[in-house]
Amino acid sequence: MILSELHATSLKIVVINTVTNPTDPHDLDDVTVQRQLERSRNLRIGLLQAGYNIIASIPGDMYLVDRLTQLQPDMIIIDAESDARDVLEELVLVSRDAPRPIVLFTEEDNPSQLASAMAVGVSAYVVAGLQVERVKPVLEVAVARFQADQKLRTELHDTKNKLAERKTIERAKGLLMARHQLSENEAYQRLRKQAMEKNLKLVELAQRILDVADLLG
Amino acid sequence: MILSELHATSLKIVVINTVTNPTDPHDLDDVTVQRQLERSRNLRIGLLQAGYNIIASIPGDMYLVDRLTQLQPDMIIIDAESDARDVLEELVLVSRDAPRPIVLFTEEDNPSQLASAMAVGVSAYVVAGLQVERVKPVLEVAVARFQADQKLRTELHDTKNKLAERKTIERAKGLLMARHQLSENEAYQRLRKQAMEKNLKLVELAQRILDVADLLG
Repeated sequence: MILSELHATSLKIVVINTVTNPTDPHDLDDVTVQRQLERSRNLRIGLLQAGYNIIASIPGDMYLVDRLTQLQPDMIIIDAESDARDVLEELVLVSRDAPRPIVLFTEEDNPSQLASAMAVGVSAYVVAGLQVERVKPVLEVAVARFQADQKLRTELHDTKNKLAERKTIERAKGLLMARHQLSENEAYQRLRKQAMEKNLKLVELAQRILDVADLLG
Repeated sequence: MILSELHATSLKIVVINTVTNPTDPHDLDDVTVQRQLERSRNLRIGLLQAGYNIIASIPGDMYLVDRLTQLQPDMIIIDAESDARDVLEELVLVSRDAPRPIVLFTEEDNPSQLASAMAVGVSAYVVAGLQVERVKPVLEVAVARFQADQKLRTELHDTKNKLAERKTIERAKGLLMARHQLSENEAYQRLRKQAMEKNLKLVELAQRILDVADLLG
């Protein structure tokens, strides 16, 4: 993972801003709007003061996935209005292929947004009251948590793979045993020999045998 | 998981306090001591205002593990001085058998403490500037994260188990095939039949066969 080698402040950060600037001047009197604007401002100041590298600030619109694919940030920060579930759902798509820390700053308690965020694997979910000096520690914790999560996810992925490979190899072995009246050990040795000759992994050869067997019926 | 059925405020919380009250009145002038005392106070006020149930406040001393085993809290909050690594190491022991959300509030950035916290699986790690009104959302996020983490850990645990069980069953099957000149299928059928007769799981029977084979040599 490249993140562990980088100092946090050299991370390329994209801020997704779902907070719309009020067009109606009366909205500026609204307490919620004021708090949102203040949080957005503090977030930006905090990032800049801590020396982070904001490579883009983009809205949470229909071009979000395309933009993130182009920008390839090391970290995504969501500056969320009351509900960022749409943005989170889009991020599921991007995160599957390129996992990276996602930090969500929001003003309100919102149980369904919180649930979506955890499902996506958000590394930090920060509700309300963002102080400028807290931005850096929050991001540092987020990076550490992301790395711990990735370790767990990688382990899960590897274990699932091993289980699936074992099943594939066993099925191929069973097939050889039945077709050629081989013992288990003979079937296994034949598989190993062929895999070496063809320069394939055991599981790759096993999968080819199963594919061909399916075709030939 | 019992947590999902409980409203957060009915959680039984134990606070581990590693912040020592200054005995020397001069220490009260120290800015760090002042901030720590203020954070401790805000944490307590925040918990009480949000209606949480603090069943005990205990120091991070040598009796920590025993006390937690007695108290069986639903959530652990660490109110940490500059370094809570000792407390975190103790919590590894307690968490292995009884996983529960752990929230750490601390005043300073401390990379090695952060690393320890992630290794233990701390659900929230909050650095500096704790405001009273932020206590509740922080704990809510911690509970949601704990549940998401547990889901992942359970899945990993189950997958590892499946893989281990498969290996055990295969080894026993191989043993039967070799000893009694059975085909793979015959060996498997014999295992299944005996497991049913003895009211054992396939893997349990397989393990017994391997144990006995080891004994008999």
